[in-house]
Amino acid sequence: MSKVLRKEEFRRDKKIKAALFGATGAVGQVFMWMLHDHPWFELTRVVASESREGKDYGSEVHWILPQEIPEEILSLEIASFNIEEMREQGIQIVFSALPNHIAEKIEPQLIEAGFAVFSNASHYRYSEHVPILIPEANMDQLNWIEKQGYPEKGFIITNANCSTTGLAVAMAPLRKFGIKDVIVSTYQSVSGAGHPGLSALDITGNVVPFIGGEEEKMRKEFKKILSVDVDIHPFCVRVPVMFGHLETVWVEFEQDVELGDIIKAWAECSSGVDHLPSTPAKPIIYEDQNDLPQIKMAFYGDPEGMVVYTGRLKRQGNRIGFSLLVNNVVKGAAGGSIQNAEAFVAKYIDK
Amino acid sequence: MSKVLRKEEFRRDKKIKAALFGATGAVGQVFMWMLHDHPWFELTRVVASESREGKDYGSEVHWILPQEIPEEILSLEIASFNIEEMREQGIQIVFSALPNHIAEKIEPQLIEAGFAVFSNASHYRYSEHVPILIPEANMDQLNWIEKQGYPEKGFIITNANCSTTGLAVAMAPLRKFGIKDVIVSTYQSVSGAGHPGLSALDITGNVVPFIGGEEEKMRKEFKKILSVDVDIHPFCVRVPVMFGHLETVWVEFEQDVELGDIIKAWAECSSGVDHLPSTPAKPIIYEDQNDLPQIKMAFYGDPEGMVVYTGRLKRQGNRIGFSLLVNNVVKGAAGGSIQNAEAFVAKYIDK
Amino acid sequence: MSKVLRKEEFRRDKKIKAALFGATGAVGQVFMWMLHDHPWFELTRVVASESREGKDYGSEVHWILPQEIPEEILSLEIASFNIEEMREQGIQIVFSALPNHIAEKIEPQLIEAGFAVFSNASHYRYSEHVPILIPEANMDQLNWIEKQGYPEKGFIITNANCSTTGLAVAMAPLRKFGIKDVIVSTYQSVSGAGHPGLSALDITGNVVPFIGGEEEKMRKEFKKILSVDVDIHPFCVRVPVMFGHLETVWVEFEQDVELGDIIKAWAECSSGVDHLPSTPAKPIIYEDQNDLPQIKMAFYGDPEGMVVYTGRLKRQGNRIGFSLLVNNVVKGAAGGSIQNAEAFVAKYIDK
Amino acid sequence: MSKVLRKEEFRRDKKIKAALFGATGAVGQVFMWMLHDHPWFELTRVVASESREGKDYGSEVHWILPQEIPEEILSLEIASFNIEEMREQGIQIVFSALPNHIAEKIEPQLIEAGFAVFSNASHYRYSEHVPILIPEANMDQLNWIEKQGYPEKGFIITNANCSTTGLAVAMAPLRKFGIKDVIVSTYQSVSGAGHPGLSALDITGNVVPFIGGEEEKMRKEFKKILSVDVDIHPFCVRVPVMFGHLETVWVEFEQDVELGDIIKAWAECSSGVDHLPSTPAKPIIYEDQNDLPQIKMAFYGDPEGMVVYTGRLKRQGNRIGFSLLVNNVVKGAAGGSIQNAEAFVAKYIDK
Repeated sequence: MSKVLRKEEFRRDKKIKAALFGATGAVGQVFMWMLHDHPWFELTRVVASESREGKDYGSEVHWILPQEIPEEILSLEIASFNIEEMREQGIQIVFSALPNHIAEKIEPQLIEAGFAVFSNASHYRYSEHVPILIPEANMDQLNWIEKQGYPEKGFIITNANCSTTGLAVAMAPLRKFGIKDVIVSTYQSVSGAGHPGLSALDITGNVVPFIGGEEEKMRKEFKKILSVDVDIHPFCVRVPVMFGHLETVWVEFEQDVELGDIIKAWAECSSGVDHLPSTPAKPIIYEDQNDLPQIKMAFYGDPEGMVVYTGRLKRQGNRIGFSLLVNNVVKGAAGGSIQNAEAFVAKYIDK
Repeated sequence: MSKVLRKEEFRRDKKIKAALFGATGAVGQVFMWMLHDHPWFELTRVVASESREGKDYGSEVHWILPQEIPEEILSLEIASFNIEEMREQGIQIVFSALPNHIAEKIEPQLIEAGFAVFSNASHYRYSEHVPILIPEANMDQLNWIEKQGYPEKGFIITNANCSTTGLAVAMAPLRKFGIKDVIVSTYQSVSGAGHPGLSALDITGNVVPFIGGEEEKMRKEFKKILSVDVDIHPFCVRVPVMFGHLETVWVEFEQDVELGDIIKAWAECSSGVDHLPSTPAKPIIYEDQNDLPQIKMAFYGDPEGMVVYTGRLKRQGNRIGFSLLVNNVVKGAAGGSIQNAEAFVAKYIDK
Repeated sequence: MSKVLRKEEFRRDKKIKAALFGATGAVGQVFMWMLHDHPWFELTRVVASESREGKDYGSEVHWILPQEIPEEILSLEIASFNIEEMREQGIQIVFSALPNHIAEKIEPQLIEAGFAVFSNASHYRYSEHVPILIPEANMDQLNWIEKQGYPEKGFIITNANCSTTGLAVAMAPLRKFGIKDVIVSTYQSVSGAGHPGLSALDITGNVVPFIGGEEEKMRKEFKKILSVDVDIHPFCVRVPVMFGHLETVWVEFEQDVELGDIIKAWAECSSGVDHLPSTPAKPIIYEDQNDLPQIKMAFYGDPEGMVVYTGRLKRQGNRIGFSLLVNNVVKGAAGGSIQNAEAFVAKYIDK
Repeated sequence: MSKVLRKEEFRRDKKIKAALFGATGAVGQVFMWMLHDHPWFELTRVVASESREGKDYGSEVHWILPQEIPEEILSLEIASFNIEEMREQGIQIVFSALPNHIAEKIEPQLIEAGFAVFSNASHYRYSEHVPILIPEANMDQLNWIEKQGYPEKGFIITNANCSTTGLAVAMAPLRKFGIKDVIVSTYQSVSGAGHPGLSALDITGNVVPFIGGEEEKMRKEFKKILSVDVDIHPFCVRVPVMFGHLETVWVEFEQDVELGDIIKAWAECSSGVDHLPSTPAKPIIYEDQNDLPQIKMAFYGDPEGMVVYTGRLKRQGNRIGFSLLVNNVVKGAAGGSIQNAEAFVAKYIDK
């Protein structure tokens, strides 16, 4: 067994060594972008499918981000899945951007080998003791890793599905009003489907009111993350834009809530841990201009790719309506996972 | 006063003469397309803004439809708003694609002058005795024209806002189950904003969760058309596609309804009048493939521009969810108005 | 050997029986759309990949056209590649929408078996005696089938690559002025890449200045179709629209040519054979409005999917510039192939 | 007369005070974005149309950039066109993002009043002694301001049209090979048309092969900037993307040039002045991957919005072909103008 990452061995003058699995996919590329100069983690090993081993990352990746690929990652050699070597390299954290059918084979071995695994795959999300962690929403679930055996054993923390992430962040500070009913329609960009993912012929000039498995994920994950027994009513719809998921939401609360209470709850939202590198000071920004947030604000280049924007707050009868925007590849995927690793380090290693 | 169009003067061997007001705008162009070879109506006079009088339609219109402009309308001379001349020409029906602020000045004069006015403008929609007519939904309201004074006087019949039209058609056959609650999110194409309407800079690669006045229209029109006291909960959102409005809907009914009852109700829906040229045999088509209907099916070239498509029918708790698609410029605008004129002729003139 | 389709056996009161290979792909679907009610050909056998044999077309196809799939083709059974059965069915014409790597295996067997093969695949395009036929451009090459052995033997006629088709049609009537130099940049829609073809992630909100192999095809095919020794200079670029290829062209001629000569040459262009069902009376339409043709006119629903539009004609020094628009899935693919079959029937069978 | 900005009065410890005219338009917003924290210039006065005077920038601007509007500019008060006040404020540089018909009235007064004017408007571009400055291409023309009377008098420096900018930057280092012939087709994003500019109805799902006046501008500006007597052959085409202009180019040179010579010339290109804040170390980046540069790389958020990317270099006969990408709102508009002001300061004030 590897040495699990523990407080007593931590040296603040060194970065924690991390590996990335699934580095060439769409979400993998966002991990690469965010990790290549991360202040706490050092990307020590980049793993992709076997046929790519030994080759340069730059020659193997079909880079889909609008930013130019960082020069320093072009010549990174793609490594194999080899636990011994990972141990020798001193790797203690593994980020997983693996497709689900591969994640279910590889992630158990990584946990077993004593790594701290932070995964964007959905395989483990619904397992007992595995948190679907979003620091702004359920930091109290971080300690479930102890039920997984930490610090004696490795563990896994998953992040939520991209559209669930936006909804859970916006609803978390409103939980105190008593959530009775949630109805949500999504406007999801094509990057959520990965690469090659969706055919251009299916979405160019089109809107498709179906995303396989997405509504089920939203229903299950919302309950688990917020620890509420509310079966939300989602429609998940694909729209022809590149990045960003917009959602329109109607909610009912147990309590009588003023719109001002909601704006205040959002403004006061925090990740529960101060100064994580990837958590903005204000994780929710409410836009009071009536045509905001718009999907183009989710633009990947935006330094605020970790913010969830809300807007169009209104009341009609007992219901309160609002819209929200989440950057699906950053906060809703790679960035969420990295933030979870930071939260773990902040709470267990370097508090 | 003009001679109002009445049964006794009708000659089946002649087309009814019609004028079109607002002929160069986006909806005006769809009227031109649908009327230029209509079996019952003869487009006798084409009226546009004063500065265009005396000029050829072809030189004045900025044609935005994908179809080539029909050759026979290129050289139509744009005429002035002149009631005397209209009488001399034997015009009895007027279609109005006027912008609202102009409609409110001109339409009262047309009614006063004894014309049968079919208007896409919203000005008169909420007036007493003025039906917002959709034959599939509220043919019983057609006879409100008698309260307006017909057959002694001219009258106006409006059609609904484009997004309301889709929802009202889909919900009309379900009224019998007792509508308790409707929540709807729209995915509306740019053509709904007219021309020039929306700036390309605002919507290219973007989704904008606000369309000024649209949600209010949906709430008011839904109640009036379906004669129900239900305050629907809409979010109206603009997406970057050319034609077609998609909507996702969650409904609650008084009665316990099976999904099969709904499919049956949609299948049996009819316009209430047989054989109107612009009403398809099946005004609602339910698609049981889970990713249909898609917005590209609303494509203006489609001969079925008058059909409302439904899909994704599902039940969750007490709620029933579905999606729908309406061609906003045909069924939801010009085509709806023409269908209303046909319904009037069928019922009052040539039954 | 099958009985090759010959004049003496032809009965005008019966349609000619045809098979379609590659029926479920993007181009295959356009063939289905155009053949399902063709006046001369009866679609008797629909062949797709082996795994689909015995199943209904409707359940196997991922329909990507904006039109609803015609009801009558939903339940067509997908058949195997079986020459004996094809003979028994009386099939004489085969349309091929096969991917190239499959076409190269199957098409030789179809020719060998005595069928008249009309193929959209590129495999045979550059073979001796095989015409890349475009009736408007090179009807004189139709008789190359005799060098292939017709009427004793089967034969193949290919149609050109989609972007070459537009250019060849527009340049054919100008050949008489002596083509010296052609420079062309294309604006090609995503449908040209087939399905799944291009990933939505690669083209949404993007323009990609490269289409593998396309420029080489244009250079080779242009020379062969027009029988000229001119090495054109192409740039082939993908743009984020669904249907239609636009091209900008600069040409130099041996002769001194007036713009009026060019407009006249285009106006007088014909397919060389009268009254083919799929050839419009005017195969080239010159648009003199300066912002036409636009790509939305290539919209598949357009009845003029067989027309090549030209526009923006201008002279600068010795060069003449113009733009053109071709519907890449109709005229540039399935429609071109069907038109070729019609041209063959008109010339050899039923003149 | 104001005190013209001169070397002797310059204090390196203070920023130079600048005004921006036309601050609320699309290009104006990019100026605001780039100037609000510029290291050399302090945005002291923001001028917009008269009706907006005295109001906050944040309430008056219809912000179209994907980035959130910087908080510090929200409450800037919009000022009037008042030369006396500008003098009192100590303003010495004026940036102009005015529409052309307003620029032609206001810019002469600004020059007359002794300001150093850097304008994105086209009005003065073709006047004698007025440079269309692009530091990478024609720094030798900067001293034309002396012919305008500097340092006794105010002066104006214009920047080129957005599509010309990309072409001129890429061609400038190749001038030494003797430019004989240039043929260029553009793929221009909608942001080039300003706001509201183009109607969404005209460009959604469309490509329009005409941009009024653009081809004439390219022809005139190319000659003047590069001081060559070459009448380029352009086609300017609008494509449905938000930011970035791509161009395909075929060139002939007097000399026999190897592809390697061109790559080397691009790599060695510099602005001629070291260390301007807005000029990247490598103003031209050649991409040797065959599908680059793509338009999504011009994404406004990119720190490299000042780089011109080239790619697809190839030779065919005597011609050399390549593609290029320029960020039309940064390098091709506001950024170009700011870079010109920096070049002026570097050369005349603080060398």
